[in-house]
Amino acid sequence: MAKIQANTPKGMRDFGPEQMRRRRFLFQTLESLFLEFGYQAIETPSMELLETLTGKYGEEGDRLIFKVLNSGDFFKKLSPVLAGGQSPDAKKHLPLLSEKALRYDLTIPFARFVAQHQNEISFPFKRYQIQPVWRADSPQKGRYREFYQCDIDVLGSDSLFLEAEMIRMYAEGFYRLGLPDIQIQINHRGILAGIAEAIQAPEQLRALTVTLDKMDKLPLDTIKEILHKEGFSVDQIRMLDPILALGSGDTPELMAPYIGQTQAGSEAIHALREVFELSLAPGPLAGAAQLVFNPCLARGLDYYTGCIFEVTLPGSGMGSLGGGGRYDNLTEMFGLNSRSGIGVSFGAERIYDILEAKEAWPKEIQQGPEFFFLHFDRSGALKALSWMEKLRQAGHTTLLYPDAAKIQKQMKYADSQGARYVCSLGSEELAQRSIQIKDMESGEKVTLSDAEFAERINQGYYGTH
Amino acid sequence: MAKIQANTPKGMRDFGPEQMRRRRFLFQTLESLFLEFGYQAIETPSMELLETLTGKYGEEGDRLIFKVLNSGDFFKKLSPVLAGGQSPDAKKHLPLLSEKALRYDLTIPFARFVAQHQNEISFPFKRYQIQPVWRADSPQKGRYREFYQCDIDVLGSDSLFLEAEMIRMYAEGFYRLGLPDIQIQINHRGILAGIAEAIQAPEQLRALTVTLDKMDKLPLDTIKEILHKEGFSVDQIRMLDPILALGSGDTPELMAPYIGQTQAGSEAIHALREVFELSLAPGPLAGAAQLVFNPCLARGLDYYTGCIFEVTLPGSGMGSLGGGGRYDNLTEMFGLNSRSGIGVSFGAERIYDILEAKEAWPKEIQQGPEFFFLHFDRSGALKALSWMEKLRQAGHTTLLYPDAAKIQKQMKYADSQGARYVCSLGSEELAQRSIQIKDMESGEKVTLSDAEFAERINQGYYGTH
Repeated sequence: MAKIQANTPKGMRDFGPEQMRRRRFLFQTLESLFLEFGYQAIETPSMELLETLTGKYGEEGDRLIFKVLNSGDFFKKLSPVLAGGQSPDAKKHLPLLSEKALRYDLTIPFARFVAQHQNEISFPFKRYQIQPVWRADSPQKGRYREFYQCDIDVLGSDSLFLEAEMIRMYAEGFYRLGLPDIQIQINHRGILAGIAEAIQAPEQLRALTVTLDKMDKLPLDTIKEILHKEGFSVDQIRMLDPILALGSGDTPELMAPYIGQTQAGSEAIHALREVFELSLAPGPLAGAAQLVFNPCLARGLDYYTGCIFEVTLPGSGMGSLGGGGRYDNLTEMFGLNSRSGIGVSFGAERIYDILEAKEAWPKEIQQGPEFFFLHFDRSGALKALSWMEKLRQAGHTTLLYPDAAKIQKQMKYADSQGARYVCSLGSEELAQRSIQIKDMESGEKVTLSDAEFAERINQGYYGTH
Repeated sequence: MAKIQANTPKGMRDFGPEQMRRRRFLFQTLESLFLEFGYQAIETPSMELLETLTGKYGEEGDRLIFKVLNSGDFFKKLSPVLAGGQSPDAKKHLPLLSEKALRYDLTIPFARFVAQHQNEISFPFKRYQIQPVWRADSPQKGRYREFYQCDIDVLGSDSLFLEAEMIRMYAEGFYRLGLPDIQIQINHRGILAGIAEAIQAPEQLRALTVTLDKMDKLPLDTIKEILHKEGFSVDQIRMLDPILALGSGDTPELMAPYIGQTQAGSEAIHALREVFELSLAPGPLAGAAQLVFNPCLARGLDYYTGCIFEVTLPGSGMGSLGGGGRYDNLTEMFGLNSRSGIGVSFGAERIYDILEAKEAWPKEIQQGPEFFFLHFDRSGALKALSWMEKLRQAGHTTLLYPDAAKIQKQMKYADSQGARYVCSLGSEELAQRSIQIKDMESGEKVTLSDAEFAERINQGYYGTH
C-alpha cells in the first residue's frame, strides 16, 4: 500500500483527549447555562445552499465561504461552456461546479431555519446553537479555518427583559468558566443616531460610528483627525468633546444634555436606563462582572437596531470575548415578516485560549479515569472486572490495563491517563481477599478488605484515611 | 433585498428543540458509558486532505466523498489545461479544483490522527469519537447525506479483555437507551478461514464468506445454489451442512469436530471461548442482551482479522444497530507499524429511528423548562426574576414570558415549551407575598407564601401536595 503523510488540512485542528476535556467543560458549562435560562438547542446542517449564503457577508465574506463540489463529472458539465469558446466566469459558471457551501456563521442558518419552520415554531423562539463554522481565511495564531461558534437568540419579542437576561447570562457564564471579572459594554443604536443628529450630521451616521468605534484603540487626537478627514467640521468635532469625555462608569442619563432633544437619543437613553435597572434587579451580576455604558461602541451598525453589547476581559490583551445586540430584519431575506430579535454570542475559541493562557481550567477536568486497575494475571484481572462493574454502577469511571505487562509500564500508563486511584490485585491481595489502593494525588497507599472496599463504594469515600 | 427560498440541501436535516433533546440524550448516554469504561474523546477536523481519503472506501466510496472547492479563481487554474486543447480529466485535474474533502467516516481520520500524534499518545489508546460524516449518496428513508457516527476503538493491545469489554458496553449502552433486548452476534475470522480450509477451498475464502454472510436474508437452498454457481462442488457444499445447521445459542465449541483440526479454526474456537467467559465473568449482561455465536457472520473480511460483532434488535425489522471487530493494520497506510486494535460503532441514527418508532424516549427528556413564569406587569416580572435566580442557583431551568401578553397566549406558549410548573405572580399574589404554581402534569394548582416557596426551593420539592 502506498504510504501517505498523516496531515490535517491547513488551519484545521485535531483535538486530543486533554483538549477535549477542556472543550467539553467549556461547551457543557454554557449549554447548562442556556438551558437554565429557557433556551433550547437547534442544529442545522453543515452545508447550506450557496444562494442562502452568498451576498450575506460582504464581498470578502463571499470569498471566504468554503464551497462544496457537485457530485458527478463536473468537467463534463463545464464542457458546453468550454466548447463555446467562452472563458468560464467564476461567478456565472460557479453553479456548474458547486451549489452548496459550508456554513460561515450560525446567524444566517438560524434565519433560514426560522423561515423554513415558521409554522412549527412557537414565538418568542429562544434558541441556542453550538456548532462549527468554516472560513477559508489565511490561518494565523488564534485564527482557524474551522472553529466553533456558540450563539443564543430570541426571536419574536422586543421586551427589554431579554437585554437584561443576556447581560446576566454573560456575567453568570463567564463566572462559571472561571473568568469572573469581565466587562460588559453596552450601547444603543439610538445613542449613535442621536449624536449624529445633535451635531447636525444625520447622513454621516455611518462615518461617525465607524470612527467612534475605534475609540478604544486610537488616541483621541487621532480620532478627531479622522473625523476631520471624513468631512466633519471643527464645530461639529468640538460638539463631540463632552460626549467623548464620558468614560466607563458614566450612566446613559449623562448623555441627556447632548442628545436628549433628539427622538432617537431620548428613546435610547430611556431604554438603556431600563436595561440597567432590569439587569440588576435580581441582585448584583455574578462574579465581579461590570456593566459599562460606552457611547462609542458601534458593532456593525447596519444589522443592529437597538442595544448592542461587547464583552472584554480587561488586562487580558484579548479583544472581544462575545457580543451581539438587538436586530429587526433577520428573516426578511427569506420572505418572513420582520420580528424583533436579540442575540449574543460567546467567543468560545477565544475563551478557550484565555483559560489556556491563564491555566484557569478547573482541577476536576484535568483528571482521567478515577479507578485504574493493574493487570498481573487472569485471576486478578477477572476480580478487577467485578470491582469495575460495581464502581461504574456507582457512577465512576474505570480503566483496566488490558495486558499483564511489567508494573512500571502499567504505572506509567496510569499516570499518562491521569488516573486518580490505582487499584492493585496481586497474588497476596487475592489470597487475603483484599485490594490495594494508591491515591495518585497524595502518593499514599491503603489496603482494604473486600468488605471494606464494598462499603466504601456504597459510601462514595475512597480516601486513604 | 431579493427574497430567497428557505431550504436545506438535499438529504440534510435541521434538528429542532424536541429532536435535539432526544439526540442529546442519545449521545450523552453513550458518552457517559464510554467515559465510565475509560475511553477518552478526540475530535478531528471536518475536512481531510483528499489524498488521505481517496482509495480507502472503494471506487463507489470515492465517488460519494464530498469534495471542497479550492479557494481562489479555480477557472483560472484550469485555463492552462483548457488552452492546451486538452479535455480535462476528472481524476488527473481534480487537484486544480479540490484538495480537501469532508470526512466519509471516523475510522480513516482516527488512523490519520494516531499516525500524526503517535509520539503524544500513550498506548493502548482508548478513544471515542462522536462526529458527523458526509456522503453524497442518493437520500432515501433513513439515509442522509450528513449523519453522526459514534465509534470506540482501542489501539495497541491484542488482549481479549477488550473484546469482552465491548460486548458488555453494547449490552449496557443499549440497556440505558431503553433497548434492553438486543442480540450481539459474534464470530471470528479464523472460524471462516477454518471452514474454507476444512472443505478444502482456502483460496475461495472470500466467495464463501460473502455468501455465508447472506444466511440471515436468504433461504438455505438459495445459499447452496449461490455456492454452487461460485464453483463449490457438491461434496464441499455437503460438508457445510452441519455447520450451516448450527443456530443461535450454539457454542463455538460445537465447531470443533468440523474445523478443530485447522490452525485458524482451533485458535478461533479458543479465542471465542475465552471472550464468552470474560464477557460474562462479572455477571450477566445488562438488560436481556444475548451474546450469540454466528459462524456465518462476515462483515468486511478484508479489514477484520479476529473477532467480529454485529448488534441487532430481533423483531425491529431494522438491520444492524452497530458492529465492529478486531483489525491489525489500521495505521499502516500512514507508515505507522501495525498495532493490533479493536473497534465497534453504535449506529446512532438507526438507534434514534428505533427509539422514535417505539416511542421509547424517557419521559424526562420530553420536558422543557421546569419553571415557567407568567408576565402580567413590570412588578410581577421583577419578582419573577428574583425567583428565577434562586431556582437556577438550585439547578433548575426557568423561563419568563418576556411580554405582558394575554394569559391564554402565555399559557399556550408554556404548553408549547413543555413547561412543568407554571408560576403566576398576579396583583393578588404580589399583595399577599405569595405565588401560585400550576403543575402542568396533574393540572392542579397550589398557592404558596413566599416563605413556603423559598423553603420548597431549599428542599427541592415542588408538588402540589
